[in-house]
Amino acid sequence: MSRIVMKFGGTSVADIARIRHVAAHVKREVEAGHQVAVVVSAMAGETNRLVALCREAAPLHDAREYDAVVSSGENVTSGLLAIVLQSMGIEARSWQGWQIPLKTDEAHGGARIADINGAALIERFERGQVAVIAGFQGISPLNRIATLGRGGSDTTAVAIAAAIKADRCDIYTDVDGVYTTDPRIVKSARRLPRISHEEMLEMASLGAKVLHVRSVELAMVYDVPLMVRSSFADPVIAPPGTLITGEDTDMESETVTSIAYSRDEAQITLRDVPDAPGVAHRVFGPLAEANINVDMIVQNISEDGSTTDITFTIPQSEYERAMSVLETARDTIRFAKMVGDTEVVKVSVIGVGMRSHAGVAATAFQALGEKSINIRAITTSEIKISVLIDAAYTELAVRTLHGVYGLDKLTH
Amino acid sequence: MSRIVMKFGGTSVADIARIRHVAAHVKREVEAGHQVAVVVSAMAGETNRLVALCREAAPLHDAREYDAVVSSGENVTSGLLAIVLQSMGIEARSWQGWQIPLKTDEAHGGARIADINGAALIERFERGQVAVIAGFQGISPLNRIATLGRGGSDTTAVAIAAAIKADRCDIYTDVDGVYTTDPRIVKSARRLPRISHEEMLEMASLGAKVLHVRSVELAMVYDVPLMVRSSFADPVIAPPGTLITGEDTDMESETVTSIAYSRDEAQITLRDVPDAPGVAHRVFGPLAEANINVDMIVQNISEDGSTTDITFTIPQSEYERAMSVLETARDTIRFAKMVGDTEVVKVSVIGVGMRSHAGVAATAFQALGEKSINIRAITTSEIKISVLIDAAYTELAVRTLHGVYGLDKLTH
Repeated sequence: MSRIVMKFGGTSVADIARIRHVAAHVKREVEAGHQVAVVVSAMAGETNRLVALCREAAPLHDAREYDAVVSSGENVTSGLLAIVLQSMGIEARSWQGWQIPLKTDEAHGGARIADINGAALIERFERGQVAVIAGFQGISPLNRIATLGRGGSDTTAVAIAAAIKADRCDIYTDVDGVYTTDPRIVKSARRLPRISHEEMLEMASLGAKVLHVRSVELAMVYDVPLMVRSSFADPVIAPPGTLITGEDTDMESETVTSIAYSRDEAQITLRDVPDAPGVAHRVFGPLAEANINVDMIVQNISEDGSTTDITFTIPQSEYERAMSVLETARDTIRFAKMVGDTEVVKVSVIGVGMRSHAGVAATAFQALGEKSINIRAITTSEIKISVLIDAAYTELAVRTLHGVYGLDKLTH
Repeated sequence: MSRIVMKFGGTSVADIARIRHVAAHVKREVEAGHQVAVVVSAMAGETNRLVALCREAAPLHDAREYDAVVSSGENVTSGLLAIVLQSMGIEARSWQGWQIPLKTDEAHGGARIADINGAALIERFERGQVAVIAGFQGISPLNRIATLGRGGSDTTAVAIAAAIKADRCDIYTDVDGVYTTDPRIVKSARRLPRISHEEMLEMASLGAKVLHVRSVELAMVYDVPLMVRSSFADPVIAPPGTLITGEDTDMESETVTSIAYSRDEAQITLRDVPDAPGVAHRVFGPLAEANINVDMIVQNISEDGSTTDITFTIPQSEYERAMSVLETARDTIRFAKMVGDTEVVKVSVIGVGMRSHAGVAATAFQALGEKSINIRAITTSEIKISVLIDAAYTELAVRTLHGVYGLDKLTH
């Protein structure tokens, strides 16, 4: 007997027919003898409807009231799933964040989980009851409802799994697992049976939308095994999904496990900036103050060493704002010219095996060079290499890298 | 400076434009220097939508889960009104039942209020904050959300008014007050500037839909002055509504204050029931067990005294079920024949002055007799007389009684 958390997103609970389908998944696990906590999102479209009402009420609104309004979508779904489970003969009850309680900080609209008391849930498990938990919500130190930000139900599921010491946290979604890369671009992309938390974290951060970044961070910190699997497929016939766990020795044989890409990039270059101490601070200080996240940074020194060109990337949605912030700071930065480009994409090679394998980056640069793909910027970490290239080459670059590391033939 | 409760129903908060209108009413009271608590229902249609989802999930469902689902409508409205008030420069916050806390018993779906701690609300009033309270909901002894039954937001408003010792509880609705009778039937019906709690209780029980019966009971017990007024009319030009208070000497001059009628009636007659001790119990016991409310009862003895005819009324919605319950009990009751009629209506004459005026009932019987209206059954209390008549005579009877007691000419 195991204790498991099952999480279902908005499209999986879009109507009563879909909720019955979810209940069948839950029933299967209960009948297999497991103790089960289910975390649900709001019915598809419901959170958007509630957000729109708040915006119509006032464009700038109190985040505490926004949270009180939008959290109601999950209250509805958790109650409905409990009703359906009961009608199938399964003992179940709904839990809202404040009932558990799932305590958060006061950062309404994007709160972080501070503490979860799993005692009440565990006591009910012992009596054979399924816990149906409203995702995305908790209770602040001042007794107000606080939401965890969009995609927060993934985070709820992982945090609950940690609190009740679950053996596994299953994230049911509309895909059947995590792939070596986007199957829409590379036909031969393969579902990964297993990857590490760190790799998943890089993938989520680098544009793969299958899991919310914070949920993966939390799973890594608390060592919660995650399973990404399809809520639509028949669980008996369908593949079991992708297991995301702490690293183990089996994994070290694979150098690279996946290729990710992100189109949400924009590049800005400042030309002929006086190359003096403090120049980086003068450029990036104003951007940080404006809450604009800078990602890749490249600095070239001019021929005579007196000036430098600074190139960096930011999220595409911040492009106009960043240009305006820098224009305002022009007198302190003293650049000659500012040029920008939104037709860029970041392609990343990810794999924990890179740590112990030299030459992974060189292989990527060579392969891209052979296809005449120009690299505009590079960043690397222990387990990933990211390159910024012209957006027109996205598919070619992803396919090339997918092939050169042998991901088409992945067999583990 | 007074402390007031303002309650707005579903049609008054149907969309953001209507909620802005509600906020203007609140602003007016705040600017007049009052401490204000606002109680809101769900947006029009929302509770019905949520009830339908519960029924689709399972026709027979756990009332605790039903409560968790349907209470969410009020959470949305209270948050939205708080946002709109804030945008108008008024300090406001939303309160859900469990946050106050408004404690109830465990009768989910139709819970009764056990206790309200008004301390947190009062502390906020002192700081100039408006409380926006989600109506219809509270928290059970087991920490579950419990709803107060349909129309329960009226009850929430009165209970809050009692808990915070409000000077007045204003019920904003789609009519501008309580009338001597239904203006759709009697053109000369007049708005009553003031009536007693007891009269309002009779009127609410007898078919006038302006207030929920339990809210009036509660107002009577805690002596909360209620004001029924229009949420649609311009408050500056419009009449102030009807004030419902404890009796005072001014009121005694009016013998009759209003004529009510209820079409939700059905009549059942059991013929030739053996007239032996215990017959009433054999008839009404099974109906009570089936939770069917019996209202008027008439028992006639046959000529030879050996058998009796028993006639009684029940809500029209219970008609089929009552017939079936009695048919099942036929062998123990031993009636010869059962006949029923749903084409009946109950018309009532109401007034606290009846207590000290003889002949009020005789006047009614005479007036109806002169119009050849046959009276099928009669019930009376200290402050009302009800007669059951053929539904076809409804308007004639209401107009006749309205005229005979001089309600057309009401001047106080």
